[in-house]
Amino acid sequence: MSAGILDGRAVAAGITERSIERVGELARTGGQRRLHIVTATTDPSSESYVRALTRYGTRIGVRVTVERLDEGAPAETIRRALASASADPSVHGVMLQTPLPAGVSLQQVATAIAVDKDVDGANPLSLGTWMSGGAGFAPATAAAVIELLDHHGVELAGARVTVVGRSPVVGKPLLHLFLNRDATVTVAHSKTKNLAAATRGASILVAAAGSPGLVTGEHVGDGAVVVDVGTNYDAFGRLSGDVDAGSVAPRAAALSPVPGGVGAITTALLFRNTITGLAARRPTEPAAQTTTEPAPVPVPH
Amino acid sequence: MSAGILDGRAVAAGITERSIERVGELARTGGQRRLHIVTATTDPSSESYVRALTRYGTRIGVRVTVERLDEGAPAETIRRALASASADPSVHGVMLQTPLPAGVSLQQVATAIAVDKDVDGANPLSLGTWMSGGAGFAPATAAAVIELLDHHGVELAGARVTVVGRSPVVGKPLLHLFLNRDATVTVAHSKTKNLAAATRGASILVAAAGSPGLVTGEHVGDGAVVVDVGTNYDAFGRLSGDVDAGSVAPRAAALSPVPGGVGAITTALLFRNTITGLAARRPTEPAAQTTTEPAPVPVPH
Repeated sequence: MSAGILDGRAVAAGITERSIERVGELARTGGQRRLHIVTATTDPSSESYVRALTRYGTRIGVRVTVERLDEGAPAETIRRALASASADPSVHGVMLQTPLPAGVSLQQVATAIAVDKDVDGANPLSLGTWMSGGAGFAPATAAAVIELLDHHGVELAGARVTVVGRSPVVGKPLLHLFLNRDATVTVAHSKTKNLAAATRGASILVAAAGSPGLVTGEHVGDGAVVVDVGTNYDAFGRLSGDVDAGSVAPRAAALSPVPGGVGAITTALLFRNTITGLAARRPTEPAAQTTTEPAPVPVPH
Repeated sequence: MSAGILDGRAVAAGITERSIERVGELARTGGQRRLHIVTATTDPSSESYVRALTRYGTRIGVRVTVERLDEGAPAETIRRALASASADPSVHGVMLQTPLPAGVSLQQVATAIAVDKDVDGANPLSLGTWMSGGAGFAPATAAAVIELLDHHGVELAGARVTVVGRSPVVGKPLLHLFLNRDATVTVAHSKTKNLAAATRGASILVAAAGSPGLVTGEHVGDGAVVVDVGTNYDAFGRLSGDVDAGSVAPRAAALSPVPGGVGAITTALLFRNTITGLAARRPTEPAAQTTTEPAPVPVPH
């Protein structure tokens, strides 16, 4: 067996196409959507991400504004910027870049982002709200995993899912997105004593530990669908995931590549959230039908 | 093998003893703690719970005030009562009774409870905050499970835990309390296809599905520690749990009874939260050493 590819670029292309349509509809009534990014860092990967977001916005017709604060900005200054953007009726999405200045925690400042404009689900109130069945945005990377599986026809209800990793931005929200879709979910992490025992029974295995090559063939049951959320850069700036594709591919039914898998979808989701808003769709709902309909990947139960 | 008893009353007695001491210390400096309960229901089990809370408060020296709203009170009236109690410096804990009036959701109103007075963790912001590593109270029933296991010396780090049930007040918060203590956690529920497969490998099994007798011997691995969070009333008003003790006891290393297990601890925790406040202790930290020190229950890994 050799694994099928869970292509994220095709998913992103479908979302982008629908976003461009919607932006066109809004333009006819004079409305333009706007994403406001607050940043207090000159970290190169953050800078490069902000440039990518700006390019994507230009491409689909969403205005992107960037508010640069001092790298030593205190929490109160960051909160004020987020609250002011949240209160501005011309702003539809508010994002805060990390890393934050020394001594400032995301916790401390993200509550200043209004829940209905919190397009990357950074406010703990967003998390607590959608987890409890209310309307709120999930972090875009976690939502991208679900989007990728839905697009490729992987059945989530009743699936046995193992998520490796318990970060507040990926692993923890992701486990709830799977629970909300009626999967049976296991969360494993760096303190799990026997990782293979926690992963080998999974019909869907998600690697989100931030540890290059952590998941190898021995961790994967025959015919499992494997999603790689890792974005690890080596000393030469090369990107790799958490999955050792060489040993995993012969066992898995399907595998998402890095790059070109989950990461490719994240930006498209951030902008979709900015365009459609919270009222239109809850993150826990199944994704809308995609325009290109690939063959379903078989998932063992 | 016959299961040891995970006695909740002894745990509650230890917490109560320390709460009485702390209330005495506060009294010497003229301070009195106060729990304010907002209720808009005449549901008999809610009424009986409010009476039990009032009695417990009287016993340990914490003032309990009850604000009765009309059974048809709109969301805005309930929010105003919660916000007003939250703003009152003489109030240290704010609780909202359920069921709520028809058409009012807990989501809708619980955000009006200040996080630092949200002693039963009802505000989604509390959940999102402590889940992400910040300071907030967990729902008392979920916290009681951890308290019970800690008291009986059950090791959580590295344990394989299965929680059966995914309610926002027990199953979901509980899975995060276990994750924060380095357990590997699986969540099973009504849509899990093979429940026994998800539970039999667990070293700690928590039944929180609200389904009488759901967990039987076939679901339990030899030597597992089993915690029963079920509180099911039959037509005669008799209380039973989610665990079929007759078939489970011969296999389990230890089992919590219903009544006298988790339920016995919940009230004591609500008042401890009211007395110590949020600054003193995060719910994710291990519980303080208990006064009575029972023999540890062996847990297989």
